[in-house]
Amino acid sequence: MKEWFKNIENAPEGSAFPLARLLEELNFNDQGLIPVIAQDADSLAVLMFAWMNHDALLETLNTGRMCYWSRSRRSLWRKGESSGHTQKLHTLSTDCDGDVLLAKVSQRGAACHTHRRSCFYLKIGDEQVTISGAFIEE
Amino acid sequence: MKEWFKNIENAPEGSAFPLARLLEELNFNDQGLIPVIAQDADSLAVLMFAWMNHDALLETLNTGRMCYWSRSRRSLWRKGESSGHTQKLHTLSTDCDGDVLLAKVSQRGAACHTHRRSCFYLKIGDEQVTISGAFIEE
Repeated sequence: MKEWFKNIENAPEGSAFPLARLLEELNFNDQGLIPVIAQDADSLAVLMFAWMNHDALLETLNTGRMCYWSRSRRSLWRKGESSGHTQKLHTLSTDCDGDVLLAKVSQRGAACHTHRRSCFYLKIGDEQVTISGAFIEE
Repeated sequence: MKEWFKNIENAPEGSAFPLARLLEELNFNDQGLIPVIAQDADSLAVLMFAWMNHDALLETLNTGRMCYWSRSRRSLWRKGESSGHTQKLHTLSTDCDGDVLLAKVSQRGAACHTHRRSCFYLKIGDEQVTISGAFIEE
């Protein structure tokens, strides 16, 4: 755990630190990526899980639209650019050791490429896994 | 994306598949780990983000208590074993390509080692990052 995060962890609620410093301290992995959890700002459902590199994070902060890094295409992935299923950023947080981001978003249509609202539609039971998300129209 | 996930993605809600097959198909990374998002089953707040290996996943499914893999200690991490801040598993899901788990849990006390309810207490603003979680007693 980086010293910077350790140093601020006992600060009381409301304490503020320069964003520029956080951006230096965030823990991108050895591929230069940080995981991102996207959560519906209204329903609080977890919608999807993806990755950002430094450029994707800066673009997201600058535009207020979620931009990820596509590991398969090896390029910036402006969510909804082709599908129309954009995500508007509400609030962005990071965790106690700065190695993951949590984005609360307004999701237009389906977050999942299967046209389900959320990617987390495979519910694990005692002996079976069950499809637990419906297709949506928009 | 693995063929198995592709093959089931158009199945209607309620369709079920053998759990044993899912466990074979889940995408553990080259360190044998899969990311896990822990979400409060009541408030739906995202509490923490951690990793499981195959053994941690099986233990979690068998006991109904969250067991992670500690990358720093290189051992199974039975959440709350020393702090008492256990997590009881409610529902476990995976996403469309089986490379991340989402666990809805009953959290006892603080999920975060800083004694905050959630690890995601660093809120990123335009120019500042602000501490946005209070310490809790229990």
